[in-house]
Amino acid sequence: MESQADILERLSATLASRKGAEPASSYVASLYAKGVDAMARKVGEEALEAVLAAKDGDRRQLVCETADLWFHSMVLLAHYGLTSADVLQELVRREGVSGHQEKAARRPGAGS
Amino acid sequence: MESQADILERLSATLASRKGAEPASSYVASLYAKGVDAMARKVGEEALEAVLAAKDGDRRQLVCETADLWFHSMVLLAHYGLTSADVLQELVRREGVSGHQEKAARRPGAGS
Amino acid sequence: MESQADILERLSATLASRKGAEPASSYVASLYAKGVDAMARKVGEEALEAVLAAKDGDRRQLVCETADLWFHSMVLLAHYGLTSADVLQELVRREGVSGHQEKAARRPGAGS
Amino acid sequence: MESQADILERLSATLASRKGAEPASSYVASLYAKGVDAMARKVGEEALEAVLAAKDGDRRQLVCETADLWFHSMVLLAHYGLTSADVLQELVRREGVSGHQEKAARRPGAGS
Repeated sequence: MESQADILERLSATLASRKGAEPASSYVASLYAKGVDAMARKVGEEALEAVLAAKDGDRRQLVCETADLWFHSMVLLAHYGLTSADVLQELVRREGVSGHQEKAARRPGAGS
Repeated sequence: MESQADILERLSATLASRKGAEPASSYVASLYAKGVDAMARKVGEEALEAVLAAKDGDRRQLVCETADLWFHSMVLLAHYGLTSADVLQELVRREGVSGHQEKAARRPGAGS
Repeated sequence: MESQADILERLSATLASRKGAEPASSYVASLYAKGVDAMARKVGEEALEAVLAAKDGDRRQLVCETADLWFHSMVLLAHYGLTSADVLQELVRREGVSGHQEKAARRPGAGS
Repeated sequence: MESQADILERLSATLASRKGAEPASSYVASLYAKGVDAMARKVGEEALEAVLAAKDGDRRQLVCETADLWFHSMVLLAHYGLTSADVLQELVRREGVSGHQEKAARRPGAGS
């Protein structure tokens, strides 16, 4: 079965392949052409949409808006030559750090 | 890499396990105890941090802030009994829809 | 200048007068008709625009986006029967409190 | 009686007077010292707080958060040597433009 990371990797590859494409050829290509502000605006918008869905307690909507949020944050990453793998690696790194900190500290409150 | 492929699943499980824990026992448990607004605030904050990092063109910072953003959006999902798998499934669904739409439409501009 | 001294009051009155109007009759009437989320989205969007303008150090743009931000936050206030006078009164109240606190405390760091 | 613009002007003057002050001397001086990102973060935070208050339909909270939002957007303006007068002037300018457009167009939908 496909892992969650595989899905993100495939999406990262798709997003990377759209770079330099005709702005009219796809939604993502048009975002790249508009520049950092356009992509940043979408990240801000989708974060607010996720907040509104959460306030409404609308689970289906929260999933959709979070998908939009992750998608557009991956567009922003792709603009800078980065991918979901960089984000996942950072999450793995923290996991490790937390684990070590927890062991070292042996006190409640440490880690996630 | 295996640990990266499963990181979101593992993180989702960790976040779910913190539900109902003593607020003082961990950062995430304290967020759950504070309620939806506290988690929503963090999603908003981290989205803005990602925007600031993108404006600065600071690639390392952008990765860290995106990790923070995804982490806190997973806390919000977990609060409603949802996981990264729900988000990834939605992204896969759109991928499929785009594919079909592309085939049906046979025109540039469809899909991502 | 007189027109500037009263602009917020005049704008508050205009916004109040648009309530209950045909959604198609004006931009503000259409926002009211769409509901709280639509107005909240605009507040979020314009706050982000102000941030982007500030990051660019674009003074003219910052003024325009702040005007948009104040305008749309006044629409949200008007939706709840509130006006800029309520906000100004709150700012005056804090000014007073700060003054008292400063006198009482007689230490650096108090007040704005 | 003091106009709303007078109150904002007084606040603008206070904010301007804090520039270059010791960071430890006041909250606003500490914001200036931290730089644009710190002020921008506060604008983003307070916009989200206003959204949360609006979603809750909490009128008192909405007034307080809007006051915070306007206050911090004035700090950002002050950082760039701008004041509330610049924002009010822009709002007056739009009022005029709308008025002219309305007259010229003589159709529903124009203006605010």
